[in-house]
Amino acid sequence: MTHLPERLLTGYRSFMTGRYQAESSRYRALARDGQEPETMVIACCDSRAAPEAIFDTGPGELFVVRNVANLVPPYAPDGEYHSTSAALEFAVQSLKVRNIVVMGHGRCGGIRAALAPEAAPLSPGDFIGKWMSLVAPAADTVSQNTMMTAGERQTALERISIRYSIANLRTFPCVKILEDKGRLTLSGAWFDISGGELWVMNRETGDFERPEID
Amino acid sequence: MTHLPERLLTGYRSFMTGRYQAESSRYRALARDGQEPETMVIACCDSRAAPEAIFDTGPGELFVVRNVANLVPPYAPDGEYHSTSAALEFAVQSLKVRNIVVMGHGRCGGIRAALAPEAAPLSPGDFIGKWMSLVAPAADTVSQNTMMTAGERQTALERISIRYSIANLRTFPCVKILEDKGRLTLSGAWFDISGGELWVMNRETGDFERPEID
Amino acid sequence: MTHLPERLLTGYRSFMTGRYQAESSRYRALARDGQEPETMVIACCDSRAAPEAIFDTGPGELFVVRNVANLVPPYAPDGEYHSTSAALEFAVQSLKVRNIVVMGHGRCGGIRAALAPEAAPLSPGDFIGKWMSLVAPAADTVSQNTMMTAGERQTALERISIRYSIANLRTFPCVKILEDKGRLTLSGAWFDISGGELWVMNRETGDFERPEID
Amino acid sequence: MTHLPERLLTGYRSFMTGRYQAESSRYRALARDGQEPETMVIACCDSRAAPEAIFDTGPGELFVVRNVANLVPPYAPDGEYHSTSAALEFAVQSLKVRNIVVMGHGRCGGIRAALAPEAAPLSPGDFIGKWMSLVAPAADTVSQNTMMTAGERQTALERISIRYSIANLRTFPCVKILEDKGRLTLSGAWFDISGGELWVMNRETGDFERPEID
Repeated sequence: MTHLPERLLTGYRSFMTGRYQAESSRYRALARDGQEPETMVIACCDSRAAPEAIFDTGPGELFVVRNVANLVPPYAPDGEYHSTSAALEFAVQSLKVRNIVVMGHGRCGGIRAALAPEAAPLSPGDFIGKWMSLVAPAADTVSQNTMMTAGERQTALERISIRYSIANLRTFPCVKILEDKGRLTLSGAWFDISGGELWVMNRETGDFERPEID
Repeated sequence: MTHLPERLLTGYRSFMTGRYQAESSRYRALARDGQEPETMVIACCDSRAAPEAIFDTGPGELFVVRNVANLVPPYAPDGEYHSTSAALEFAVQSLKVRNIVVMGHGRCGGIRAALAPEAAPLSPGDFIGKWMSLVAPAADTVSQNTMMTAGERQTALERISIRYSIANLRTFPCVKILEDKGRLTLSGAWFDISGGELWVMNRETGDFERPEID
Repeated sequence: MTHLPERLLTGYRSFMTGRYQAESSRYRALARDGQEPETMVIACCDSRAAPEAIFDTGPGELFVVRNVANLVPPYAPDGEYHSTSAALEFAVQSLKVRNIVVMGHGRCGGIRAALAPEAAPLSPGDFIGKWMSLVAPAADTVSQNTMMTAGERQTALERISIRYSIANLRTFPCVKILEDKGRLTLSGAWFDISGGELWVMNRETGDFERPEID
Repeated sequence: MTHLPERLLTGYRSFMTGRYQAESSRYRALARDGQEPETMVIACCDSRAAPEAIFDTGPGELFVVRNVANLVPPYAPDGEYHSTSAALEFAVQSLKVRNIVVMGHGRCGGIRAALAPEAAPLSPGDFIGKWMSLVAPAADTVSQNTMMTAGERQTALERISIRYSIANLRTFPCVKILEDKGRLTLSGAWFDISGGELWVMNRETGDFERPEID
């Protein structure tokens, strides 16, 4: 009887003879000296959009939060549990990251749920419904535009949500102050999955554009 | 001026000429057919412990939540925002994953914070302090054993926390029911970073053991 | 009728045609010139943790004390019989060893007994109970942490005991003086039996760590 | 800076690539199922007389106590710390060994000390002097026989001590009872170091004889 899914044990063996073998001194140094990632990525849980794969990064490079639909709630020092805010505080205040990237993606299940609020809750707790209600006003507005196709509404809300999360990042005093001092950059990105396309948010206009790749 | 950290743009170029090139048909199929990951991993944000690297998995394989110290709060249908519970609900009810793995790691900054509750909050909101208070009773008990070294106390709490999160998973009715029916497995794992060692929780005893790798 | 267990006679024959054959000149020299071991090892009686096997040493290399749970009692010049203190005195004062290593191991029966003091004594003399009472305060503290598994409590006490024995070594004036002069080193090690892993105590922190083996 | 003598680290590497490699399944089984050694050996700390080498035994075969001059004190349930008695109790009552072998050897430093009681104590605690006083009456008698050479007196006391320890074993009720029932054998052996000769005590006469080796 195994205590871990067999696929993961097999994968771990590949890791040890492959990547770990090649980067063992880096892992050892990272253990000894601690992590100093320059960048925090807030990404979705989706199995098709792992930031380390898409940005081809190695150990120690990205501090990664992953929640459904890569959302950042607004600053709310109310004494409740705030998973994402805790990670943000740790990255900015303790690790002193220099960049925060909110990375969304196409075909996001959380966004789809936000666009179909009339659907029955998945469970009596309705955690998804509550969580996605963070973007409910935008979802309502987008839903009403029946001249856009379902696919277009989905992509529209995915990108609106990224801008919304970046705006919420600025409600955290520590983020606002450091960004104003030029010591922290905030970025948005959107990955389409199918063609592997990455779209980067233009900080001035909010538009998502293909980066120029030579 | 670039709108994304330069390192990420460079990495993305590597992805497109490397991994995406090799797996484009898989990405296209995953976009067309949707994701069907068999396994959900609840991992830490730490930059040194990306589950896709450690388990050498490709796109579509792991649905990944990452929060500070890979914690699962207990089931609380109280109408508040619950990032991790929302992801859990989505994975179990909508994606119907067959395995959930809670993966902790050595030298965890969140666990370190839990063992030093007297330290000043990182910010007025004290999100980390509140979040880590989920394991405060265990942290208190572990802290009192001054015959263990600081490193040993840290490892002990890291492992206790994984068992605690697995116990909390079972407070979610959907998890409990499916596990009882044999349709969902819960696992714990702990990655040491330095030597690349993975320790797997024995489901009967709760002990963390090295898997036998031929 | 044989006067020695048959297995030992067979083994002795193998020794004579194998190891002794290969090292007879070394044995002869050691007999003629006397032993000059550089290292004293204080190990457990356990049949699975012979220091000469684990350190692959030959005749003349290790001066070895073995008692239950590799304990060193504190310095007590009270005129009683002190088996371990006598061996220590002989190694340090007469043989002038340069290193003392306290070597513990996993699944130690003595430590298990210390964690279950309510168990009935093995004999009316209760020698094990008395002997293991040397670590009773630590055993009490560890036992109270019921959030650790039985296996984790066992490992924790095994390692605390090694640090305790090393601290007791320093209560012997001859050890303290020579260590302060840099003429004697004290080390701790822990052998896991199952995977053959050796963990070495970091002298600064007291933590047990895997030595880096290229 | 290393935390373990370099020679031991080197030796451990040899162990892992040699003996452990060859016997890993045995080590794993011994860890999983626990030790069940058939034989307890009470041997000297001397670096030239490791029982596992002389009897060519593998992991799990011998439960080994090692103290200066392989002495067994008489049964004394007085509430003091008795290292050897604790090991004896554990071997007989808990592990239920079937054989106990007291193994002495030539050129024993402890026996030499017992024959020179007028020598200054090695330390103010005089732990060796006290410990070897267990055989003081025999040492006195042997010393008075000035017609024997110093070497002959040494060998004589080494062998007398083995018989004395075997007699003391029988003062432990559990040993006496099991031996009388035929469930425990007591043996004596003496190893000469130089020529690799093993002498076995004849249980009827007490004489030490060469075993017949084909």
